[in-house]
Amino acid sequence: MKKTIVLINCPDKKGIIATVTNFILAKKGNTTYVEQHVDHELKGFFMRLECEFDQDEKKLALFKKSFTTNVAKNHHMHWEMYNAEKTPKMALFVSKYDHCLYDILGRYASGELNVKIPVIISNHKDLKPIADAFNVPFAYIPVTKATKEKAESQQLELLKEHKIDFIVLARYMQILSANFVTQYPHKIINIHHSFLPAFPGAKPYHSAYERGVKIIGATSHYVTSDLDEGPIIEQEVVRVSHIHNVQDFILKGRDLEKIVLSRAIKHHIERKVLVYNNKTVIFS
Amino acid sequence: MKKTIVLINCPDKKGIIATVTNFILAKKGNTTYVEQHVDHELKGFFMRLECEFDQDEKKLALFKKSFTTNVAKNHHMHWEMYNAEKTPKMALFVSKYDHCLYDILGRYASGELNVKIPVIISNHKDLKPIADAFNVPFAYIPVTKATKEKAESQQLELLKEHKIDFIVLARYMQILSANFVTQYPHKIINIHHSFLPAFPGAKPYHSAYERGVKIIGATSHYVTSDLDEGPIIEQEVVRVSHIHNVQDFILKGRDLEKIVLSRAIKHHIERKVLVYNNKTVIFS
Amino acid sequence: MKKTIVLINCPDKKGIIATVTNFILAKKGNTTYVEQHVDHELKGFFMRLECEFDQDEKKLALFKKSFTTNVAKNHHMHWEMYNAEKTPKMALFVSKYDHCLYDILGRYASGELNVKIPVIISNHKDLKPIADAFNVPFAYIPVTKATKEKAESQQLELLKEHKIDFIVLARYMQILSANFVTQYPHKIINIHHSFLPAFPGAKPYHSAYERGVKIIGATSHYVTSDLDEGPIIEQEVVRVSHIHNVQDFILKGRDLEKIVLSRAIKHHIERKVLVYNNKTVIFS
Amino acid sequence: MKKTIVLINCPDKKGIIATVTNFILAKKGNTTYVEQHVDHELKGFFMRLECEFDQDEKKLALFKKSFTTNVAKNHHMHWEMYNAEKTPKMALFVSKYDHCLYDILGRYASGELNVKIPVIISNHKDLKPIADAFNVPFAYIPVTKATKEKAESQQLELLKEHKIDFIVLARYMQILSANFVTQYPHKIINIHHSFLPAFPGAKPYHSAYERGVKIIGATSHYVTSDLDEGPIIEQEVVRVSHIHNVQDFILKGRDLEKIVLSRAIKHHIERKVLVYNNKTVIFS
Repeated sequence: MKKTIVLINCPDKKGIIATVTNFILAKKGNTTYVEQHVDHELKGFFMRLECEFDQDEKKLALFKKSFTTNVAKNHHMHWEMYNAEKTPKMALFVSKYDHCLYDILGRYASGELNVKIPVIISNHKDLKPIADAFNVPFAYIPVTKATKEKAESQQLELLKEHKIDFIVLARYMQILSANFVTQYPHKIINIHHSFLPAFPGAKPYHSAYERGVKIIGATSHYVTSDLDEGPIIEQEVVRVSHIHNVQDFILKGRDLEKIVLSRAIKHHIERKVLVYNNKTVIFS
Repeated sequence: MKKTIVLINCPDKKGIIATVTNFILAKKGNTTYVEQHVDHELKGFFMRLECEFDQDEKKLALFKKSFTTNVAKNHHMHWEMYNAEKTPKMALFVSKYDHCLYDILGRYASGELNVKIPVIISNHKDLKPIADAFNVPFAYIPVTKATKEKAESQQLELLKEHKIDFIVLARYMQILSANFVTQYPHKIINIHHSFLPAFPGAKPYHSAYERGVKIIGATSHYVTSDLDEGPIIEQEVVRVSHIHNVQDFILKGRDLEKIVLSRAIKHHIERKVLVYNNKTVIFS
Repeated sequence: MKKTIVLINCPDKKGIIATVTNFILAKKGNTTYVEQHVDHELKGFFMRLECEFDQDEKKLALFKKSFTTNVAKNHHMHWEMYNAEKTPKMALFVSKYDHCLYDILGRYASGELNVKIPVIISNHKDLKPIADAFNVPFAYIPVTKATKEKAESQQLELLKEHKIDFIVLARYMQILSANFVTQYPHKIINIHHSFLPAFPGAKPYHSAYERGVKIIGATSHYVTSDLDEGPIIEQEVVRVSHIHNVQDFILKGRDLEKIVLSRAIKHHIERKVLVYNNKTVIFS
Repeated sequence: MKKTIVLINCPDKKGIIATVTNFILAKKGNTTYVEQHVDHELKGFFMRLECEFDQDEKKLALFKKSFTTNVAKNHHMHWEMYNAEKTPKMALFVSKYDHCLYDILGRYASGELNVKIPVIISNHKDLKPIADAFNVPFAYIPVTKATKEKAESQQLELLKEHKIDFIVLARYMQILSANFVTQYPHKIINIHHSFLPAFPGAKPYHSAYERGVKIIGATSHYVTSDLDEGPIIEQEVVRVSHIHNVQDFILKGRDLEKIVLSRAIKHHIERKVLVYNNKTVIFS
């Protein structure tokens, strides 16, 4: 039995649930799980189905074609279909901060993340020993203002070569160009070290300290061409007080960054995220 | 259009989702929202549907009958159907603590709770002025060991008279008899002032203080004949430290109790709770 | 024994703790509790002492004078001294939202807040019945652009008449003039319905929904002449998801607002807040 | 300037703060930070001081002697004095679970923990590659019922040899004998994977799942001869729901365990923990 995940996004309309589950049934699939969301303001309908097919790849291709013609078109659907048994390939981008890298590789080694990591890409050599310790290939591609375009070409080539499905910026301290971002739409996950939209940009912990907030946060979001303004996937917070200085904020924030980023990665891997209107639907 | 909520609980089996949504469609209903849960260990299937019917009460009764015969039987379903437009009737039981009463009545007066409160029942007169201030009838029924049975009879009579759908024990300091509880199965909501199963029984804040915990909690659950062991609906916690004494625990706990109890009441009102195996499925 | 609270703020320097506790001992006081905070960046020293004196008001006045001359001057201290046994007087400002008012009056009636409330001031009549139910005087002072100055004069007169120590804006929907604010420096507590500095100004829940955040918050702060930029006293947050619309944000936010505002009020009443550099030190 | 930390525990009495800070001043020390706690119920007084001495080790030894004679005796103090500049030595005990080990070693390598780790001790060989990757010596000491006593002897020898100050059980799946525990009183930190006192003993996530709780937790505590009943240092919780099975609880719990254990380790390293009456005072 092949487990398949279907994500659907279309205008809200009467009878969609029955239409889709019926179509799957007619094609000898079994819908094992349905979740949907209705945005009443925008009249948008969102659905995630898990279903099982007793079929080979070829027949699934036929299903896809038939679904497009007979269901998706009529309902003006954007839709995606994933083989749930295929492990996605993730590339890690890092610079010098090691805590997120340690955390992700620790989870990876423990088998907690259902993912393959064919390559870690960095603009600094500092974290290579960590990649080595976990036996993950490490590609050092330095980036300067002058070489940025060339560097991004190298990065993109590497990503293609390894058939990377999505990218995680694990405290990568470079801004990706619009050209780069466009090639991986909603497939680049960033961790920003503040509770967005508070404190976007550089040095958010310093700004939070300056403002005297009582809670700090971290935010994981998809990268878009607008810096720190992409769709938010996950956020988490922790209490601080006057006794904590900027350094304490940074230390406490590290734990947030690790947790928030790993949760966002898991949501993405499990195909639980649907993006619309610069927001995310996160199915459970 | 009549909005209707259907709650289903049955053994897991292929095709249930399509079967049910098809049946509703065939009866000219529109399924607007489906949520389900599968307990893979117990092979249990749980579903909550919201659907709309363009029908009067009479036809809905026919639907009910037909669904029972044609769907529910075959799948060995326990199922319930609610008219979402009918406001449920809630009775409040209180003793001397006023914080939960103030909180619930404040929400009630603000229109936050979609419920009617025909009566507040208490074994003490202390809180009558609060009931008066909010214009809710207050029934004083004293309870002693000797009079407990009679008192419960009076309470039950009052509940029947007011056609009460469910009961909220807002820090009611009496234990209800098994006989009483049986008449409102999964329809009596209690708030216990600890993070159950830690510190059941009397004086949980004292026990928590004694043990030196760093977090205290409150738990809302359905009352069963086993004290503090009914299905948990909602829990919440708050940090404490060595600087807090028992009195501080009690004060901090009050805010928890208010929030946890009001959340549980809302889940219940919106028919989002399904009980099985002494646990709850809380649909979103 | 008169319990007294001393709050001190001065440049950091060797020996301050011993100097102060010694001085109190020499004046036959007993220091029962000391907390301090050192801001190493700004070289600032902050201290809160609880001490007991076996003296009448007159002698305490002498102590004050002597402390000023012999200790405070040398260390360039800003300092305050409070009789911990004197209940402070709080005025409530409200408009039409009732949830914070219900919450504060409920706590007040329960004896949870060690405070007197001589008057509730409002620019609308809507909440008068609540004030009546709790037997608190209600002053209706309408405010329009044209009458604002006059209205504030009336308000200030009322505050003086009732010897108000501090003001709580419990969702008061008017902006106080700089003139008003200056007369109660760090004595006006506001509740803002967002996690500041995110979403300042009007309709923060709408903005949070628009942005697609996964957590919303509330912030209590002292009012300064810069809107929503005063020193933060307390913040709290709660999770939201795509299933929640603006109305849900507002409902969830209410519980935050109530809790955050009541915590801030308690900190203020217990003289645990020291303001400096537009930030707060909140002693435990 | 030598930074020194003093922890004091004695019966509550008038004038202790002034007495101690004066004594330090007289010995040419500067008290830079004082925190205290008074347990009014037990009449206990607890204090943590940070002070700076312009002195060598020898003179500090004299200070110690003088303090004992002139201050500690009179006030029946239990007291400890630590050189804050001396890095403590920590031994890690592990079995087969790797997440806490990865987390601690990641923090260690990042310089986040001000500690030395001379040795990791394990009853299984499984985690040796991780120790190797981080260049920390790994001692494999198998434990069976029959060899337990001998194994503990070997462990104790190793601890003495490395001059270990405290031990962290990072999911070590063996129960230490009372004899072992007694040799490191309040110096063995354990992580238990439940919100104690709920679900002590084996398989707490299974029990939590069984009970249907809505929040799970983790608890770090000092090991005493009563299993899972030692003084609690830190706890943290995370929400769960009906959609999570035992495996999900375990995965979510891992993040709690890592965070709770690392916080407890930091508190211990910074000498912020004072144990009394089977509870902890955690200074800020």
